[in-house]
Amino acid sequence: MGFNLGSVLMGLGMTSDSDQYSVDSVTLFVALLCACIVIGHLLEEHRWMNESITALAIGLGTGVVILLRTRGKSSHILVFSEEIFFIYLLPPIIFNAGFQVKKKKFFRNFMTIILFGAFGTLISFGIISLGAVQLFKKLDIGYLEIGDYLAIGAIFSATDSVCTLQVLNQDETPLLYSLVFGEGVVNDATSIVLFNAIQRFDLSHITSSIALRFVGNLLHLFFTSTLLGVLIGLLCAYIIKKLYMGRHSTDREVALMILMAYLSYMMAELFYLSGILTVFFCGIVMSHYTWHNVTENSRVTTKHAFATMSFVAEIFIFLYVGMDALDIEKWRSVSDSPGTSVGVSSILLGLVMVGRAAFVTIWWAGLMRGAVSMALAYNQFTRSGHTQLRGNAIMITSTITVVLFSTVVFGLMTKPLVRFLLPPPKHSNSMMPSEPSSPKSFTVPLLGNGQDPEADMCGNDTFHPTSLRMLLTTPTNTVHHYWRKFDDAFMRPMFGGRGFVQPVPS
Amino acid sequence: MGFNLGSVLMGLGMTSDSDQYSVDSVTLFVALLCACIVIGHLLEEHRWMNESITALAIGLGTGVVILLRTRGKSSHILVFSEEIFFIYLLPPIIFNAGFQVKKKKFFRNFMTIILFGAFGTLISFGIISLGAVQLFKKLDIGYLEIGDYLAIGAIFSATDSVCTLQVLNQDETPLLYSLVFGEGVVNDATSIVLFNAIQRFDLSHITSSIALRFVGNLLHLFFTSTLLGVLIGLLCAYIIKKLYMGRHSTDREVALMILMAYLSYMMAELFYLSGILTVFFCGIVMSHYTWHNVTENSRVTTKHAFATMSFVAEIFIFLYVGMDALDIEKWRSVSDSPGTSVGVSSILLGLVMVGRAAFVTIWWAGLMRGAVSMALAYNQFTRSGHTQLRGNAIMITSTITVVLFSTVVFGLMTKPLVRFLLPPPKHSNSMMPSEPSSPKSFTVPLLGNGQDPEADMCGNDTFHPTSLRMLLTTPTNTVHHYWRKFDDAFMRPMFGGRGFVQPVPS
Repeated sequence: MGFNLGSVLMGLGMTSDSDQYSVDSVTLFVALLCACIVIGHLLEEHRWMNESITALAIGLGTGVVILLRTRGKSSHILVFSEEIFFIYLLPPIIFNAGFQVKKKKFFRNFMTIILFGAFGTLISFGIISLGAVQLFKKLDIGYLEIGDYLAIGAIFSATDSVCTLQVLNQDETPLLYSLVFGEGVVNDATSIVLFNAIQRFDLSHITSSIALRFVGNLLHLFFTSTLLGVLIGLLCAYIIKKLYMGRHSTDREVALMILMAYLSYMMAELFYLSGILTVFFCGIVMSHYTWHNVTENSRVTTKHAFATMSFVAEIFIFLYVGMDALDIEKWRSVSDSPGTSVGVSSILLGLVMVGRAAFVTIWWAGLMRGAVSMALAYNQFTRSGHTQLRGNAIMITSTITVVLFSTVVFGLMTKPLVRFLLPPPKHSNSMMPSEPSSPKSFTVPLLGNGQDPEADMCGNDTFHPTSLRMLLTTPTNTVHHYWRKFDDAFMRPMFGGRGFVQPVPS
Repeated sequence: MGFNLGSVLMGLGMTSDSDQYSVDSVTLFVALLCACIVIGHLLEEHRWMNESITALAIGLGTGVVILLRTRGKSSHILVFSEEIFFIYLLPPIIFNAGFQVKKKKFFRNFMTIILFGAFGTLISFGIISLGAVQLFKKLDIGYLEIGDYLAIGAIFSATDSVCTLQVLNQDETPLLYSLVFGEGVVNDATSIVLFNAIQRFDLSHITSSIALRFVGNLLHLFFTSTLLGVLIGLLCAYIIKKLYMGRHSTDREVALMILMAYLSYMMAELFYLSGILTVFFCGIVMSHYTWHNVTENSRVTTKHAFATMSFVAEIFIFLYVGMDALDIEKWRSVSDSPGTSVGVSSILLGLVMVGRAAFVTIWWAGLMRGAVSMALAYNQFTRSGHTQLRGNAIMITSTITVVLFSTVVFGLMTKPLVRFLLPPPKHSNSMMPSEPSSPKSFTVPLLGNGQDPEADMCGNDTFHPTSLRMLLTTPTNTVHHYWRKFDDAFMRPMFGGRGFVQPVPS
C-alpha cells in the first residue's frame, strides 16, 4: 500500500524528528518549573524552606532520574549557556529588583549601600583572590593563571541574598530589608563588572598607574551605565505621558515599558557598558515616573508581570543548577583525587566567610552564593561546553559545591536565625505598606539601630546611633532634601510621577 | 606599554566580538518594535491605519535602509526561522485568542463557526489547489510537485482577520465580531493541520479509502488536541483553587497560568497533536474556570499580560515580514521573468477571492493573508535558509506579494467599508461591556440578522432569521442549555469559575 497509518498520525503534528529532542526537553523543563511552583507553595508553610532550595532539590532529583535512565551518560535536559543567563534570565531579575525597591529607603541609605556593596565587594574580592593564590599552592590542582585567581575572587564575591530576603519582611524591618537588598544588587553588579574587566584585561603588566586608570574606568563605567538607564527610563515616561498611551489600549503601555526596559539592557551591552546597572536604574526611574503615568490596570499588570518574570527566571536558574550539579563529565576528571576537590571547596567556603566578615555587618545575608556565581564560573572555566583541563574541572565542581552547600545549609538556617534575632512585631500596621510611621525594628541587633533616619535626627529615641551611621546618614538626608525639591520643580512636571493621573480610556 | 585604554573600556562590557552581531540586531529589532508601538499609537487617529500595516511599513523602510547600507547584500537583521514562529510567537497569539474570546457568543455560534472555519477552509483549500494546478501550467514556473500544489492550497487558506477585528467593536456588533473571530481561529488551525498532514503524507498513492482514513485521522486529531487543552486548563484551575495559591503570592498564580498554558502547547507538539488547537481550548478553559479562582490582582495582570504578549508577537511578525519582503536573494532568481511572478501572484489573489467567496458570507473579513501564510510558505519552499530552485523562489515572492497586497490594500479599505456598512449605534451602552441586552446590530447586512439568538427564539423581532441560521442556532442553544446545567452542577464546584471568590492574601 505504501502508506503507514502510524506515520500519518505522527505526521499531523508539527515537529520533525530532529526537533523532537528539543521539544522533549522544553516540555520536561516547563513541567518541572510548574512542579517547583506548586511544591514551593506547599512547602511555604514550613518556614525554613524556600523556593530556591525547592528548585535545587527538584533539579537534583531530576538529575538522578536522568542519570539512571541514560545510564550515567548525562544528567541534564538543556545545555546551559551563560548567554541564556545574561541575555534572558538576568535582565528581568535585575529590572524587577530596581522596579520594586523602596526608593526612599534605598536612596536614604545610598552611601551605606554603596559602601557595603561596592567597596565591600572589592575587599572580599581581594581577600578571596589572594587567599586562593596562597592556599591553592599546597594542593595539586593543575595550572591556573593569575587571571583565573582574580576571576575566582570575582566569582565568589557575588552574593545571593534571595534566601535572606524571602525571610525578611519589608514592612516589619524596612531598614534591614533595604540594606540587604541594596547591598545585594550593588554587590552583584560590582562582581560582574569586575569579572568582565578581569577577563579582558592584560594581566601580565600591572603597575600602579595602570591600576589607577583601571579604577577610573570602572567609575566611568558605573556613571555612564547609570546615566543610560536613567535616560531611557525618562524617555519612556515622557512618551507615555505625552502621548496618553492608555487612551487607546493599556496593552500598548505595558508592551512599551517591557520593551524599553529590555532595550536599555541591550543598548548597554551594545556600547560595552554594564547592562545590569543600566537596567537596574531604568527600573528605578520607571517605577518613580513611568509607572505613575499609566492607567490603573497597567499599573497592576506591570507590577505583577515584572515580579512574575523575575520569579520564573530565578526558579529556572536554580532548577538548572540542581540538574547540572550531577553532570558526570565534570566529576570524572575530579574523581581520581576527591580529597583535592573537597579541599578546594572548603578553602573557598572559608575564604567566602572571611571575606564577607571583613567588611560587612550584615554578614549572614551575603553568605549564600547563587546563580550569578555559577554563570560567571561557567563563563571563565568552560570554554566550549565542557572542559578537559583538570584545574578547570576542579573549579567548576568546587563552585557547584560551594553554591549547593551555602544555599542549602545557610539557606535552611536563615529562617530560624532571623526568627531568633528578630522577634515578630506585636502590632504590625499592615494597612500602611510603605513607610510605616513607627517601624518596629528597634531590636535589630545586626545593625545597632534600625530606626527611621529622620527620627534619629529629631533626637527622640533612647538609642544612640552609631557614629558611622550618623556620618553616612546626615549628608544623604541633605542630598535627599534637595533632590525632592528639584524633582517637584522640574522633573515631575516633565515626566509625570506620583500624583499624575492618566485619564481612563473611554 | 602593552596596554590599551580603549580596549579596557571596551572590554568592561559583557559581549565578545562574536556576539556583537546578534546584540546589534536584537537591539535594533527591539528599538523597531518600540517605534512600531509609538507610531501605531499616533496613527490610531487615522481610522484607516492599523498596527499590522504600520509594522509592515516600518519593516519595509528598515529593509530599504539596510539594503542601501549593505549595498544590496542583505535586507534583514534577523534570520526568520519558522521554528521561532511556531514555538515562541504563535502560542501567545492563539492562547490569548482563546482567553479573550466571549465564550457565550462563541459556543452559541459554535456550529456556524465550525461550518465557516473548518469546512470552509477545506473548500477554499480545494479550489486554490485545483486552480493552481490548472492555471500554473500555462506559466513557465519550473517544476512543482503535487504536494507543493496542495501546500499552496493550505497556505492561502489561512486567513488573517486581525485587520477586520481591529475595526469591529465587540460591544456594538457582538455577533459579527464573534463570527469573524471564531472563524479566523478555526480557519488558521485547519490550515495548519492540513498543511502538516500534506507535508508528511505520501502523496503518490491516493485512493478513496486512504482519503477517508485521512479525514478520520484529521477528526481524531481535532478531538484529542481539544481534549488535551481542556484537561490541562482544568488541572490548572483545580490546583489554584485547591491550594489557595494567592494566599502567599499572586505572582505564583500568574506564573503557573502562563507556564501551564505553554506546557499544553508543548505537550501537544510532543504527542504530535495540533498545539494550536490545544492552546486555544486551554485558553478558553482557563478564562472560564482558572481566571475566576485567582486574586483580583492576578486577574488584571493575566488579562493584560496575555494581551500584551500576543500584541508584541503580532507586531514582531509583521515587522519581520516587511523587512524580509526586500530580501534581494529571493527576488534575483525571479527578476529575469517579472511577468511570471506577477502572473502567479495575480492568479493566487484571484483564487483566494474565489475560494473565499465560495463558502462564506463574511467574505471580506477573511481576504487578508498574513503571518501564518508566511510561516507555512517558508516551511514548504525554503529548506535550508534560501532556495535555489526557481519554482520555490517564485512561490516565496508570490506569497510575500499576496500578503503585502492583501494586508495593505484590503486592510486600508476595511475601515471605510465597515463604516459604510455598519453605521455607528446611536446610544452605545458602554457601561455593559459584555452581553448587552439590546444589541444595536440590526443593520448588519453581511449576516442577515445580527440579533441575539435568544431574542430570535422569543419571536419578538420583526426581522425573520434566515433558515440556515435558525437551523444552526436551535440545536446549539439546546446544547448550551444542558452545558450550563452540567457546568453549574458538577464543574464549578470542582474547578471554581465565575462567582468563586479567592480570599485576599493577608
